[in-house]
Amino acid sequence: MTWVTGADGSPYGVTNLPYGVFRSNGGQPRIGVRIGSWVFDLAGAEAADLVLAAGTLCRPTLNDFMALGRPQWTSVRQRITELLTDSAHRPVVEPLLVPLDEVELLLPIEVADYVDFYSSEHHASNVGQIFRPGQPPLLPNWKHLPIGYHGRAGTVVVSGTPVTRPTGQRASAEGPVTGPSVRLDIEAEVGFVVGVPSALGDRVSVDDFADHVFGVVLVNDWSARDIQAWEYQPLGPFLGKSFATSISAWVTPLDALAAAFVPAPDQDPPVVNYLRDVPHLGLDLRLTVEWNGERVSEPPFASMYWTPAQQLAHLTVNGASLRTGDLYASGTVSGPDRGQVGSFLELTWGGAEPVKLGDETRTFLADGDTVTITATAPGPDGTTIVLGEVTGTVRPAR
Amino acid sequence: MTWVTGADGSPYGVTNLPYGVFRSNGGQPRIGVRIGSWVFDLAGAEAADLVLAAGTLCRPTLNDFMALGRPQWTSVRQRITELLTDSAHRPVVEPLLVPLDEVELLLPIEVADYVDFYSSEHHASNVGQIFRPGQPPLLPNWKHLPIGYHGRAGTVVVSGTPVTRPTGQRASAEGPVTGPSVRLDIEAEVGFVVGVPSALGDRVSVDDFADHVFGVVLVNDWSARDIQAWEYQPLGPFLGKSFATSISAWVTPLDALAAAFVPAPDQDPPVVNYLRDVPHLGLDLRLTVEWNGERVSEPPFASMYWTPAQQLAHLTVNGASLRTGDLYASGTVSGPDRGQVGSFLELTWGGAEPVKLGDETRTFLADGDTVTITATAPGPDGTTIVLGEVTGTVRPAR
Repeated sequence: MTWVTGADGSPYGVTNLPYGVFRSNGGQPRIGVRIGSWVFDLAGAEAADLVLAAGTLCRPTLNDFMALGRPQWTSVRQRITELLTDSAHRPVVEPLLVPLDEVELLLPIEVADYVDFYSSEHHASNVGQIFRPGQPPLLPNWKHLPIGYHGRAGTVVVSGTPVTRPTGQRASAEGPVTGPSVRLDIEAEVGFVVGVPSALGDRVSVDDFADHVFGVVLVNDWSARDIQAWEYQPLGPFLGKSFATSISAWVTPLDALAAAFVPAPDQDPPVVNYLRDVPHLGLDLRLTVEWNGERVSEPPFASMYWTPAQQLAHLTVNGASLRTGDLYASGTVSGPDRGQVGSFLELTWGGAEPVKLGDETRTFLADGDTVTITATAPGPDGTTIVLGEVTGTVRPAR
Repeated sequence: MTWVTGADGSPYGVTNLPYGVFRSNGGQPRIGVRIGSWVFDLAGAEAADLVLAAGTLCRPTLNDFMALGRPQWTSVRQRITELLTDSAHRPVVEPLLVPLDEVELLLPIEVADYVDFYSSEHHASNVGQIFRPGQPPLLPNWKHLPIGYHGRAGTVVVSGTPVTRPTGQRASAEGPVTGPSVRLDIEAEVGFVVGVPSALGDRVSVDDFADHVFGVVLVNDWSARDIQAWEYQPLGPFLGKSFATSISAWVTPLDALAAAFVPAPDQDPPVVNYLRDVPHLGLDLRLTVEWNGERVSEPPFASMYWTPAQQLAHLTVNGASLRTGDLYASGTVSGPDRGQVGSFLELTWGGAEPVKLGDETRTFLADGDTVTITATAPGPDGTTIVLGEVTGTVRPAR
């Protein structure tokens, strides 16, 4: 129970408390935590000695706070909870609550390296069937390691940032042509934000996931399928992805998701040692994809084949170091049914089966289209918490 | 002519003047410029008002200086040249010269995003012949766009940093096995460092190369071929590359390379508009690869099919923004002859033709091996300048 007006019973109650960075009245970026329809100004709270986090809450991004490590993450969360639930604190805390509709939300983290995985068996199978009909839908390596690649960290943008349709080369019967992408797509994903770094040459065990990962964001990995199809052999996606990747403004701490961990799908064949995670846990996040306001899909994150702990162990098995601010995304989240896919490539089966949106039909994204990805997760005591949405509107190519 | 003892006639004379970051006696990182066998302490020089660069020379990396832009890069270089050539300045400048053998050289830039291209036709053809014998050596897209992908910025290390042999999965007849890489290789490359950023959604024209790119480094893109071969389909190289990428400690400014620009190879078929660069110029950098002290190859950078200006235009044609500190590498530099290849994969033709090194033979790298890549370039008036070396020694897997 919180004393904050309207917060109890809302999906941003006191068991949620995601972190973000906001600005009000054109001021400096400040770290805050969301409660109901308010932002609790943590920079102000630390300046007033209400919360102690070694000064890291007075910075323009979450990075320095995320570098502190899990004991501090947990104690700061406990203190914030205390401040928001014990009404004795109300006189000093209430002046630090800023109405959400009066703030601008900024990119919450300074992204170090961005890695994108490909860990949904349903998604990988769908893509295989669409692009390589008649062949085995999964490549031989897919069930042995979580396939991934590096994306462009510098074009990770916060939810709400407009996305300009990219220009690039695509194949045609007359040879390559250059122009605005004609197959602009989304990928609904879940991203994991690294707080605690690791040294070059070290490996992070599957057991150390929660020591390194601070929290979770929703991700839309915008994808230009025509550009990607022409460029990607042999070195993988490049310009088909690097124009923009949107993340939610709110970072949900792992502590808020304690009730959401569930057994992940069994893995057969058995995985090699460094990927063996016991317990083998995924997250019961239920995503929704809205296209111009219509719900077109409900991807179930619990169906992901590879878990976030396995992805982290794989990412570092070669000794690659982690930095605070590293972001790794799950890959497109698709469940077994057409109504559970995380890309429009799958929803329209390669563009062959358009979908109806109100009075219009679509295969891929039109200029002006808005896509919003949201998610819910089980909270404590049968409650439900909501993850911050990631939304973006397509602008015409320049 | 410089008054600095021993610098005239050395490959680090006053027409070279590469920038770096050094530390002496365990102190703070300081920006310096190399002259002969000395480092001219630019942090000290700016503190003493001998050089004016908006305070950016008193920072721990070159990034803030690189963000100033070409007019400032040129005027600072002119001023440094003046200080090192006019002996009237000797009394105040000489105390700021630190012997090179008394300093530790640090990573000169904070790397934002790291992109690796694949722009040598000879290298791409060799790789095609080794891995896809009997098929066309180049894939259909190769001559239409400079193929590239994102690498891991967080594991870019400075020359001299030991490289731990990576562990990972590789294919075997009995299925995938995990262990230290048994095909550890190098890739001799040239890297371009971005100073001036661009906005999200903007494109950088081929004509604007010199407005954005500050200078050049040598790159060794260490590669675990066995890990790479198993993981890379369909999303490209990941752990086979991400354990380490070494760059030279010295960043050679473009201004030092004015005499090194030469016509690049003709491109047929003609390229699309945004890649059309007139003049179509590459750089006459002559690389050498030494393996345990023996020169095994001399890759000619002038043979690269795609130019650095084309690579930059391609990187941004989709609206991807540039950040100060972005690093893009050329891809392995290989000339037409076996003695000109930039990887041991090619030198030993996939490991089938071992090379002799003194009393030993090698296919790929053994623990303890040292690889050093150097380069020379034409300087003004028939002189030759040297680019800072990139070297590294292989340590056993942990």
